Amino acid sequence: MKPTAILLLHCPDREGIISELTKFVTDNRGNIVYLDQYVDRVEGVFFMRMEWELDRFLIPKDKIEEYINTLYASRYDMECCLYFNDVKPRMAIFVSKMSHCLYDILARYKAGEWDVDIPCIVSNHEDLRYVAEQFDIPYYVWSIKKDHSNKREVEEAEMELLRRENVNFIVLARYMQIISDDMIREYPNHIINIHHSFLPAFIGAKPYHQAWTRGVKIIGATSHYVTSELDAGPIIEQDVVRITHKDTPDSLVRKGRDLEKIVLSRAVTKHIERKILTYRNKTIIFS
Amino acid sequence: MKPTAILLLHCPDREGIISELTKFVTDNRGNIVYLDQYVDRVEGVFFMRMEWELDRFLIPKDKIEEYINTLYASRYDMECCLYFNDVKPRMAIFVSKMSHCLYDILARYKAGEWDVDIPCIVSNHEDLRYVAEQFDIPYYVWSIKKDHSNKREVEEAEMELLRRENVNFIVLARYMQIISDDMIREYPNHIINIHHSFLPAFIGAKPYHQAWTRGVKIIGATSHYVTSELDAGPIIEQDVVRITHKDTPDSLVRKGRDLEKIVLSRAVTKHIERKILTYRNKTIIFS
Amino acid sequence: MKPTAILLLHCPDREGIISELTKFVTDNRGNIVYLDQYVDRVEGVFFMRMEWELDRFLIPKDKIEEYINTLYASRYDMECCLYFNDVKPRMAIFVSKMSHCLYDILARYKAGEWDVDIPCIVSNHEDLRYVAEQFDIPYYVWSIKKDHSNKREVEEAEMELLRRENVNFIVLARYMQIISDDMIREYPNHIINIHHSFLPAFIGAKPYHQAWTRGVKIIGATSHYVTSELDAGPIIEQDVVRITHKDTPDSLVRKGRDLEKIVLSRAVTKHIERKILTYRNKTIIFS
Amino acid sequence: MKPTAILLLHCPDREGIISELTKFVTDNRGNIVYLDQYVDRVEGVFFMRMEWELDRFLIPKDKIEEYINTLYASRYDMECCLYFNDVKPRMAIFVSKMSHCLYDILARYKAGEWDVDIPCIVSNHEDLRYVAEQFDIPYYVWSIKKDHSNKREVEEAEMELLRRENVNFIVLARYMQIISDDMIREYPNHIINIHHSFLPAFIGAKPYHQAWTRGVKIIGATSHYVTSELDAGPIIEQDVVRITHKDTPDSLVRKGRDLEKIVLSRAVTKHIERKILTYRNKTIIFS
Repeated sequence: MKPTAILLLHCPDREGIISELTKFVTDNRGNIVYLDQYVDRVEGVFFMRMEWELDRFLIPKDKIEEYINTLYASRYDMECCLYFNDVKPRMAIFVSKMSHCLYDILARYKAGEWDVDIPCIVSNHEDLRYVAEQFDIPYYVWSIKKDHSNKREVEEAEMELLRRENVNFIVLARYMQIISDDMIREYPNHIINIHHSFLPAFIGAKPYHQAWTRGVKIIGATSHYVTSELDAGPIIEQDVVRITHKDTPDSLVRKGRDLEKIVLSRAVTKHIERKILTYRNKTIIFS
Repeated sequence: MKPTAILLLHCPDREGIISELTKFVTDNRGNIVYLDQYVDRVEGVFFMRMEWELDRFLIPKDKIEEYINTLYASRYDMECCLYFNDVKPRMAIFVSKMSHCLYDILARYKAGEWDVDIPCIVSNHEDLRYVAEQFDIPYYVWSIKKDHSNKREVEEAEMELLRRENVNFIVLARYMQIISDDMIREYPNHIINIHHSFLPAFIGAKPYHQAWTRGVKIIGATSHYVTSELDAGPIIEQDVVRITHKDTPDSLVRKGRDLEKIVLSRAVTKHIERKILTYRNKTIIFS
Repeated sequence: MKPTAILLLHCPDREGIISELTKFVTDNRGNIVYLDQYVDRVEGVFFMRMEWELDRFLIPKDKIEEYINTLYASRYDMECCLYFNDVKPRMAIFVSKMSHCLYDILARYKAGEWDVDIPCIVSNHEDLRYVAEQFDIPYYVWSIKKDHSNKREVEEAEMELLRRENVNFIVLARYMQIISDDMIREYPNHIINIHHSFLPAFIGAKPYHQAWTRGVKIIGATSHYVTSELDAGPIIEQDVVRITHKDTPDSLVRKGRDLEKIVLSRAVTKHIERKILTYRNKTIIFS
Repeated sequence: MKPTAILLLHCPDREGIISELTKFVTDNRGNIVYLDQYVDRVEGVFFMRMEWELDRFLIPKDKIEEYINTLYASRYDMECCLYFNDVKPRMAIFVSKMSHCLYDILARYKAGEWDVDIPCIVSNHEDLRYVAEQFDIPYYVWSIKKDHSNKREVEEAEMELLRRENVNFIVLARYMQIISDDMIREYPNHIINIHHSFLPAFIGAKPYHQAWTRGVKIIGATSHYVTSELDAGPIIEQDVVRITHKDTPDSLVRKGRDLEKIVLSRAVTKHIERKILTYRNKTIIFS
């Protein structure tokens, strides 16, 4: 696989953007291997993901961002992100007591399914240390007191760790604590949560029990970026499974676990592949 | 097809109920052709649907209810409903302006898919009279004023019609009016609505627009019995369809229509087959 | 809605095609309202759908095809199709005895969901004449003898009708006859069939019975373009529904009907919107 | 949780069976906690699963089977299986080189989701030894030569191991070898395979490549009991996922992995819970 650059951008929709950008790449001997764009005609916004091979590209890798900014970004009022496929993202995992999402993530990591580094697993409980040890990944525990009196202190220690380990994004793999605004600001649209309901139904605690009480015939799981409003951030992926009157709260929890881990891992995959663009409170997911 | 009796019941769970009831039927030479039961172990409630052939049954058809009541219902504190497969239910359809659910229902009716009579279609608009005429079904219009000042009067006229036509249950096929408590009391768990969202998400008006605003990745439709609380009655059936960031409110409406008609018709099918038991705010759906 | 041109094309993948074509449109004052492309990297083929508004476009409508051919098609070895959104496609429907797909199609047509004309319904049986009459569409019957001795003659009469009515494409709405190669040659990738199984499982007759015999847990329906090989043409759309051991061949037929009509109508929608490109034996479906 | 007995049976359908069997249990002071039955009216066969608490049951545990045989089995021509919930099934896992199903199984096992023992993992390759070691489960490798000349010998060694470890059933977690008739005879309907297609489509090798070549819009996975005919045994569970023309054989493999592991684990769950009855080449799956 050759080294590539990946450009994700959005800007007010105007004629000729694709034409100019693809011309820019091909004129400079970049071979485009991925191009997808989308125009939100309600909002009048243009979104694009373009990936091209760098081996014959005339502009040096460390100058590409500058050239795009100078030539196009300000002219078209673009917000751009530039990535390189040979830079592995560094991912931290936050967990509490349930292992199913963690195992699913680590099994993919170990099998080489994701091109990612996992420098640390963070928890408020000791419970899953054995899983981290099975996979030889450092496991850090900071207990949060029931009255949350040490929460600020804990989060500072966590952020210190994340900075030291150059963590790029965080996966909340059934982490049962609310993330503070400070951490969200440091990782905007870079903290991925899995909520065990079909959002916006059943926000908050014990969604399976809520679903059972309401008597729904289908349950779901939702992966989203964390924002300061609870369970209200941009949705990345959702899926559902059919249930019946025979299901109990316990069997919903069991069935839900399989949904949660698959939905979370699909979201993480899209994030690692840099196929998600966020605009206001929604995601554009490139395929 | 032989004549059958269908017994639907629920009662506090106790040992021996199935044994006694099946013995009652077989001792009296009824051939059981359907038996399904379910015990809600959380609430301690027993639910059963039993259907048996009447051609050799020793108890006369018009005495069966009495015998069951005398022998079992009071002893076991049962709530029973007894139906006969040779009595066609009579169904009224309420519509407003959209034709997709109405066409889906009438196509099934005309093709003989449902063993049901449809004596009338009721609307607050003239728009769908042509559909009723295509299928030779009387179409009644009572306009409800914007300030709802004549709503009581309209509902009284409607109920008068329903009584005159011996209507057993009502299907709201995208009828955009709220049903008053009077009518609900006259048809408890016998008014089937289709709500164009995955309830309890997006209760109330314009659910597709709400879904688009929230940025969900899946939309749904929900069929439920109407109760006095808006969109909160016992859910009969739900289904969903995957959407993407490319969908607009308009395309959600288009995709949703196919969901709505199928979900509503599945619910009506179960109701006609007497396979739904309602307990508190939930349904038990026999298969 | 403004008048637009829709260009569907495929060609060997080369750098710069999008750039050139979008430049061609924007340089000539066409406003691009839809652009999607796809590169099959295994086969090295480029596919594109582009739609642009014609109200300010400098090239006259009847010259566009010529210009594209001259400037690009031969140079890039393109196969192109050009459509205009103000030209309604004319669709013939072929049926046998089952009404569910026909009703679903006609209900959409009558509700204005599809921008299409339906000049005729063709059948080998009288059974569904009443449906055609409900919707005021001419209904033609040519009986095919059991020994097929008059099949050639019948198809010639049918093709004569289709030509006279300027039919652009044919929908086989559960038409239970095999289409001859002559008709397929006249309508290549323009005859849409619904097969009542999840192809390639259960090719041929009585697929629901085959599915029941095999004991599958999910059944499906498949819409595809008709080619000379039975049930083997390019697949446009598929969907499935879960079943259980309790289902009988009859209940599979009932559940399958809902799948069939929705899957067929989705395929017809895509065809009418000119969002399908066919390459070898596969479809590219633009969203 | 109290100790229970689980009775699975089928027999020719006759009146009174449920009545007699439930009376037998309740008369002997067993509290029925699960009862589900199903009558295949096409074949005239009655199927039942009944579970009852043993703490007050009058018949000693080791006599129950005898009593049922004497009192009912021969009279009704029943085939019965009796299990006890406090006897853990012992499960062997066979693998080749892919880890996703193995990790999924072991994560559930480790989390206590399944009440099962796993005394051994068997493979024809060394590749997954590290996974077995992560979970401290003995890993046995017998290499099968390319010409299969030592296959009989290998299977004898494997069966010797299975007997020594009192293995009750085998899970083929993407084991890429064909199981010989000898082993199948020793474990009839007790070897669970996952086939990476929606059977009966794409039997045999490289189903994802076959699916890609055919251009299907949905792919599936199928879990079934192994019989002597390849990929033709009784189906336990299937599921599907939607794909598009953009998918490559590689991306189908990736998407399929998530299906495979979930479908296989659902089947294993049902098997462990003794909720599967096999009749001819089909399964009855109790819920």
